[in-house]
Amino acid sequence: MQDVNLGLYFLSELVGTAMLILLGAGVVANAILVKAKGFGTGFLMINWGWGLAVFAGVLVSAYSGAILNPAVGIGLLIRGTIDFPMFLVATAAELVGAILGAVLAWAAYKQHLDEEEDPGAKLGVFSTGPAIRSYGWNLVTEIIGTFVLVFVIFAFADYGDVEVGVPGGLGPLAALPVALLVVGIGASLGGPTGYAINPARDLGPRIAHAILPIKGKGSSDWSYAWVPVVGPLIGGALAALAAPVLLSLAS
Amino acid sequence: MQDVNLGLYFLSELVGTAMLILLGAGVVANAILVKAKGFGTGFLMINWGWGLAVFAGVLVSAYSGAILNPAVGIGLLIRGTIDFPMFLVATAAELVGAILGAVLAWAAYKQHLDEEEDPGAKLGVFSTGPAIRSYGWNLVTEIIGTFVLVFVIFAFADYGDVEVGVPGGLGPLAALPVALLVVGIGASLGGPTGYAINPARDLGPRIAHAILPIKGKGSSDWSYAWVPVVGPLIGGALAALAAPVLLSLAS
Amino acid sequence: MQDVNLGLYFLSELVGTAMLILLGAGVVANAILVKAKGFGTGFLMINWGWGLAVFAGVLVSAYSGAILNPAVGIGLLIRGTIDFPMFLVATAAELVGAILGAVLAWAAYKQHLDEEEDPGAKLGVFSTGPAIRSYGWNLVTEIIGTFVLVFVIFAFADYGDVEVGVPGGLGPLAALPVALLVVGIGASLGGPTGYAINPARDLGPRIAHAILPIKGKGSSDWSYAWVPVVGPLIGGALAALAAPVLLSLAS
Amino acid sequence: MQDVNLGLYFLSELVGTAMLILLGAGVVANAILVKAKGFGTGFLMINWGWGLAVFAGVLVSAYSGAILNPAVGIGLLIRGTIDFPMFLVATAAELVGAILGAVLAWAAYKQHLDEEEDPGAKLGVFSTGPAIRSYGWNLVTEIIGTFVLVFVIFAFADYGDVEVGVPGGLGPLAALPVALLVVGIGASLGGPTGYAINPARDLGPRIAHAILPIKGKGSSDWSYAWVPVVGPLIGGALAALAAPVLLSLAS
Repeated sequence: MQDVNLGLYFLSELVGTAMLILLGAGVVANAILVKAKGFGTGFLMINWGWGLAVFAGVLVSAYSGAILNPAVGIGLLIRGTIDFPMFLVATAAELVGAILGAVLAWAAYKQHLDEEEDPGAKLGVFSTGPAIRSYGWNLVTEIIGTFVLVFVIFAFADYGDVEVGVPGGLGPLAALPVALLVVGIGASLGGPTGYAINPARDLGPRIAHAILPIKGKGSSDWSYAWVPVVGPLIGGALAALAAPVLLSLAS
Repeated sequence: MQDVNLGLYFLSELVGTAMLILLGAGVVANAILVKAKGFGTGFLMINWGWGLAVFAGVLVSAYSGAILNPAVGIGLLIRGTIDFPMFLVATAAELVGAILGAVLAWAAYKQHLDEEEDPGAKLGVFSTGPAIRSYGWNLVTEIIGTFVLVFVIFAFADYGDVEVGVPGGLGPLAALPVALLVVGIGASLGGPTGYAINPARDLGPRIAHAILPIKGKGSSDWSYAWVPVVGPLIGGALAALAAPVLLSLAS
Repeated sequence: MQDVNLGLYFLSELVGTAMLILLGAGVVANAILVKAKGFGTGFLMINWGWGLAVFAGVLVSAYSGAILNPAVGIGLLIRGTIDFPMFLVATAAELVGAILGAVLAWAAYKQHLDEEEDPGAKLGVFSTGPAIRSYGWNLVTEIIGTFVLVFVIFAFADYGDVEVGVPGGLGPLAALPVALLVVGIGASLGGPTGYAINPARDLGPRIAHAILPIKGKGSSDWSYAWVPVVGPLIGGALAALAAPVLLSLAS
Repeated sequence: MQDVNLGLYFLSELVGTAMLILLGAGVVANAILVKAKGFGTGFLMINWGWGLAVFAGVLVSAYSGAILNPAVGIGLLIRGTIDFPMFLVATAAELVGAILGAVLAWAAYKQHLDEEEDPGAKLGVFSTGPAIRSYGWNLVTEIIGTFVLVFVIFAFADYGDVEVGVPGGLGPLAALPVALLVVGIGASLGGPTGYAINPARDLGPRIAHAILPIKGKGSSDWSYAWVPVVGPLIGGALAALAAPVLLSLAS
């Protein structure tokens, strides 16, 4: 573990996660809000949008090694890449950054949010929700999706090409595999719950949805809010425990 | 050939193939099961999903060089990259891994499989089936598709950038060409049979389909099951025989 | 700053921007003009088309480091990568190149522009327009989109892999991240205004639309024309000011 | 120019072009033939399919540097990368390879070609045709599209990363930029004529269409056949002449 300036560390995670959510919430807005030019383009555009949101978020979060996700953070903590104060600072920054990113996405799509009539679509821009509500099975899906994310990230790290959570550990070409992985997880495992796979990605924008003066908005669906927080944390922790056993990691 | 620990070798192929099938069966489930968020997105999402499933599978299968496919394995065997015990261990691991991956995909999409009314769609999540049934022509299509897969993989190897079947031979950037190749084969040659191009990919999930307690499931269509096993093995073997002649391989 | 031949510098920016607009206007024509083979394919094809237009444009603009966009130029000027004469020469070249590129796209789609009945679609091939007209909010969207573009480009530069505005600073693999970034911005932030995020990209083709003898063309919508010029310039300038603070840049 | 074995040179171009056309004709078949699983997926799948067809074709054509296209060949001839005998051998090999690839695609989609009722769709699998017939403007579109292809390839070469026409000059990562370029040209300039941008790509499969026993096939449309031959050759030659002037090439 290198010495880090926790202030810059916080800033780096905040900026990266704000970028992630601005582009991620943005692509959903484009796909589902009335009159948006991408309206109705479909799920594959959403998958690419979120993947490239990760791409951009990673690139502007070099100082902290672009964790951007408490589920990745808990994995790095368990495996000893970061310590507990770093985990707490990163997680706080990610939550604040996610709220900020959602506010920026709201500004970019302000008029479309206003003209949209369905409160469910409005919330869908910000937070995930289940296609078929069942907390148990929704939790299973989020655990599996996040396990894949964090498990493969640990496999990347073993190749030495992509080092999440290590300051300066990722460049443009190293960020690409993480982006593609998120495209793939979305396409493959996003069907049942809309793939939060990141507690900050879901909770931060949900808070923004609750706070922002969105015309005709409905409930922020707080009863579901724990699923995309708890599921990803479990999935990330399981991946950290499984990786040394299942990946024959050199490090 | 390096010395390998056959236990870790088995584990590596099992983990990689489970990842491949979890994401691969997942993207089909997302595209075709009722109420899934990606329902109706179309074939290109399936192509990207399978390609990135290969991407993730390769990355978590470093120890064994990410064979993940008995049709690739038979090619490596013929060309002498792996020996017969390695081929057998890899193939067994791939079959077990494919079953496990299908079980995980079933868990992720449990409710959608339950609510889906068409037994054909349920089976389609697990195994391939022909658009127009004709064992002979279906076999031809699978032979051609798998030939392309294995033949181009041998061409990769000759450049020294991508070494399938060689422990540690692939990293994140080297896995990308294989993933893109699978996107392309799916888009181009997947139309008639749904591109198994991998005996384990088809047989493992079909076994899972037969075993799992899927509500309202129909036949596992065992009469077709030999086509996506035999076709890919023939295609992979032909590619191994053709590669030295047609590629002017340096090695 | 290296010594540059301002004549070759002008030529390089002109060629790169002409390539960018030929392919960028082309993909919109293909997606929206009657009888084009890509008609109705949707927004994701447009996103990929513009991203790969950037890719090609960057590659043919090596001498000048592929600025291609006055909003990027103003950012480079503020950060001292280029000086004011270079900025002026680049901007002039980009505008001329954009007009030329639009003329080439017109030639490639001549018959489809003629047979198209909707004057709005004809203009849409050339210039952007808002989905919901409101100069203030449209400006906000363009500022945010361009901020993301220029801010992430500065993050690239810090990794040393991608150096926009530096002669010879980009090769085929380094151009890829910029292309992907533009795919992502389009998918995520293109919904409200069609993402000009580049004054030359919008103004040049709008001039071409006004000049070219397009059968049955309508207004060039000059009342909106200032938004995609002013918004991107503000966004690019803000990114240049924010980058040193928010990115903890090494350089 | 290195010494080449013209027999291996012929073989390499034949194999690469056969791979290109097998996958390229295949993706069109999948998109437009009745009952194919990709039926109706749309133009973007065709763009990716052809781009990745180039990717695979390049990778299996290492010995000859993967020209695969007489329009690229004429450009390399003009610029002195290859000599006239090499150009003739490559062009002949590309034509034979294209016919072979089309036969393989026919075999893979045999039943779908038989069950398809529209003779125009059958021909569309093999050869390009104009959306709006007008030899002059169709020629213009093919010239522009091929100019972009060959011009950007010369720009690649100048970076030293991608060397088309140089034995062993491309590996998996170097083939990717060419593939992406073809995705982009297809999306942007494929609307009016279906982007032959390669005389062998169009003429070879058209010959195959004329020869093969396709049930209910119609005319091979020989009256249009000269456009996708002459247009690309003009475009490739113009690119070779323009590249040294417009690209400020170092070499």
